[in-house]
Amino acid sequence: MSGEMTQIVGEFIGTMILILLGDGVCAAVNLNKSKAQNSGWIVIAMGWAMAVTIAVFMVGFMGPAQLNPAVTVAMALTGLLPWHLVLPFVIAQVAGAIVGAVLVWLLYLPHWKETKDQGAILGTFATGPAIRHYPSNVIAETIGTFVLILGLLTFTQTEFLGGANVFAVGALILAAGLSLGGPTGYAINPARDLGPRIAHAILPIENKGSSDWAYSWVPIVGPILGAVVAVLLFQVMI
Amino acid sequence: MSGEMTQIVGEFIGTMILILLGDGVCAAVNLNKSKAQNSGWIVIAMGWAMAVTIAVFMVGFMGPAQLNPAVTVAMALTGLLPWHLVLPFVIAQVAGAIVGAVLVWLLYLPHWKETKDQGAILGTFATGPAIRHYPSNVIAETIGTFVLILGLLTFTQTEFLGGANVFAVGALILAAGLSLGGPTGYAINPARDLGPRIAHAILPIENKGSSDWAYSWVPIVGPILGAVVAVLLFQVMI
Amino acid sequence: MSGEMTQIVGEFIGTMILILLGDGVCAAVNLNKSKAQNSGWIVIAMGWAMAVTIAVFMVGFMGPAQLNPAVTVAMALTGLLPWHLVLPFVIAQVAGAIVGAVLVWLLYLPHWKETKDQGAILGTFATGPAIRHYPSNVIAETIGTFVLILGLLTFTQTEFLGGANVFAVGALILAAGLSLGGPTGYAINPARDLGPRIAHAILPIENKGSSDWAYSWVPIVGPILGAVVAVLLFQVMI
Amino acid sequence: MSGEMTQIVGEFIGTMILILLGDGVCAAVNLNKSKAQNSGWIVIAMGWAMAVTIAVFMVGFMGPAQLNPAVTVAMALTGLLPWHLVLPFVIAQVAGAIVGAVLVWLLYLPHWKETKDQGAILGTFATGPAIRHYPSNVIAETIGTFVLILGLLTFTQTEFLGGANVFAVGALILAAGLSLGGPTGYAINPARDLGPRIAHAILPIENKGSSDWAYSWVPIVGPILGAVVAVLLFQVMI
Repeated sequence: MSGEMTQIVGEFIGTMILILLGDGVCAAVNLNKSKAQNSGWIVIAMGWAMAVTIAVFMVGFMGPAQLNPAVTVAMALTGLLPWHLVLPFVIAQVAGAIVGAVLVWLLYLPHWKETKDQGAILGTFATGPAIRHYPSNVIAETIGTFVLILGLLTFTQTEFLGGANVFAVGALILAAGLSLGGPTGYAINPARDLGPRIAHAILPIENKGSSDWAYSWVPIVGPILGAVVAVLLFQVMI
Repeated sequence: MSGEMTQIVGEFIGTMILILLGDGVCAAVNLNKSKAQNSGWIVIAMGWAMAVTIAVFMVGFMGPAQLNPAVTVAMALTGLLPWHLVLPFVIAQVAGAIVGAVLVWLLYLPHWKETKDQGAILGTFATGPAIRHYPSNVIAETIGTFVLILGLLTFTQTEFLGGANVFAVGALILAAGLSLGGPTGYAINPARDLGPRIAHAILPIENKGSSDWAYSWVPIVGPILGAVVAVLLFQVMI
Repeated sequence: MSGEMTQIVGEFIGTMILILLGDGVCAAVNLNKSKAQNSGWIVIAMGWAMAVTIAVFMVGFMGPAQLNPAVTVAMALTGLLPWHLVLPFVIAQVAGAIVGAVLVWLLYLPHWKETKDQGAILGTFATGPAIRHYPSNVIAETIGTFVLILGLLTFTQTEFLGGANVFAVGALILAAGLSLGGPTGYAINPARDLGPRIAHAILPIENKGSSDWAYSWVPIVGPILGAVVAVLLFQVMI
Repeated sequence: MSGEMTQIVGEFIGTMILILLGDGVCAAVNLNKSKAQNSGWIVIAMGWAMAVTIAVFMVGFMGPAQLNPAVTVAMALTGLLPWHLVLPFVIAQVAGAIVGAVLVWLLYLPHWKETKDQGAILGTFATGPAIRHYPSNVIAETIGTFVLILGLLTFTQTEFLGGANVFAVGALILAAGLSLGGPTGYAINPARDLGPRIAHAILPIENKGSSDWAYSWVPIVGPILGAVVAVLLFQVMI
């Protein structure tokens, strides 16, 4: 594989693992008869933090391991990624997210029939607002992604040794989940929301309801806005 | 920007991020309809630990990333910070804390109307005593900050590599929260309490009650006392 | 001791510690009157993550510290372990797991009589399905072990310093537990399940019921399948 | 101060901090009206893990930071500590533990009157058995300390960088708490139990009951036995 092809495959596999682990923890907490059912927000936040940590460790040797279109856009805006890679990266990320969500569906196969709550099933795949109010929901996703991207950009200014940078990214995701996830479930990543939502729409999941496409633009627009704001502030800081 | 101006801006941005994440986790746990509502003390303590970790990582390249007037005073007392920077640092920290609290208000915008408990709303911004008894409350803040500052000072005696010092600071905040936070909610940082209390007083928050200014001196006096005691003990130790 | 004998003893002691700590946390959460009873999935997942972390740190100086037949098979498949060591390693791992489970029985000695739930007692030793459906259960163990082995293989491509690789392995186990453990309790290690199940069958445990041998092949076949799939994908990635 | 005197002072201060943070988390979870009341075993186990981590980081520059008579005996047995330092170290550890417990009493001063449960108050200071059965309780403390000491000894065989060894020790304490703490509350350290028990007996704590001296020999004998077994096994391993 060429270097760029390797990077694109890395984005695909990394986002697949990210969603397998991330939506996996949502399934573990949401679905009936799961051994981890109702184990709470610390499990959700720690689960997503580990999901990103592991996914980045796994494909970090193949490329930048961005696994998030908002990160990809931010890196292109700051000149750290050539613009012609943005579209292939984003496609690979969304495709990887879809495959990851299919793996979650397989992993928890007997649990869908046992789960009657359509919201719990959709919430295993995609994010949704605690209180539906689109302007506020966009603000929440913007602020959450602003923190994420500002962290990733500023971390490049610190010399890390021995994997510590990936652990710092994990801490960043843990912080985002614990503190900023209350209003919308912190997509802070368009691929993380869109990919699994497509999987939810396509897969023959028992007891599933609407895929709530009316909300689907929020976790795309908010994160892109947050990325732009973070890049602007970062330019001031350095 | 001059070097000192960069440091001051670093204190502003760092404390803003600290409060956005720290008061953010209080909002996540306290406010009605938040997805993380009632998720418990482990979420609060881990949330604040990650808040400090991330804030320090973010602005560590701009300066000392103290983000806390008690730390600033301690560093001046030990000669690690020139005295003429104390006032600008403290002003930047309090101003950053106010802005961070405003961002929390924006982030959880639709949740204030849903939350009828005035104590929960104030507790999202500022700290308060579990049992109101000012001398004991001052002692609690003094002991908590004593541990924090003694940790920061002694850690300077250890050679850390690759970000490990910031993770050690995060562990210190986690320890303070888990063990020392029961009586007063561990401000252990005057800016962390005063800034958000000002924001609470100013912002048009639905259902808000008193800003409890009668208590507001405790998380200022206690932390300064704790810093002084820690510096004295540290001088004996080295 | 010869080098190979040291490695085999390391596998024995390491797996003993792994099960003492891993089944120990299951006992802590499951058994009546335990101080940690009903403390939830975060305790289980963090307990197993620390169990692996500590076991690997303890015997890492004696050899590869695989502690898992699925890992051993994967390392042999990729040429990182000579095939003639596979059988001795697996025997040492299962034997160590039996001894570790005996130590858990001793540690919680007065608690068995107090625990009337046969499922809770068996669940302290061996894994079981949340919903019994063998094909789905095999898929769950396959996917879980696939993530584990892909992580271990890809981590070899990253340069870690100062113990960071072991912490990354701990993060991997934490991720597996939080996200992939809901359907079957994530054996993802044939020795982890078989050894304690043998101990459960042999030991004179009060109130114990069946050792559920009908399920015992699932946490052997699933992990081996997952290891093979991970090795195949890893070959494509590098 | 001479080098040895510095080490002894280090043991005193380190154990004081250890108990301030460790018994502090017990107070936070046990006492009425504490903001962290009933926050569960993850808080207890993580709190003690951070207590040890922080205490070792704080006084590591002054000496070996053993903070535990069982560790001190083990290090003397393996030749890593001269025997003439054992008694001064142990006295400093117990004295530091008493002072640490006094600080916890001060920190939570208004909460004792609010707490009517004598067991909760004693449990804030000293350990106690979940099921009183002295031989089993000794076994539990022996196994718990065996894991602790074997960990500390084997970790000396691994090259750690940049504070990673202290984080590994923290992981070890977390593992011990999560997995081995159910039967007796894991003293695994004679000073950790004896010092605070003395403080409990002496201090004028409202609503306090018996200091349960009948149990007090268990967390001394068990840990010493565990240390001896660990040293013996370690000699075989290397």
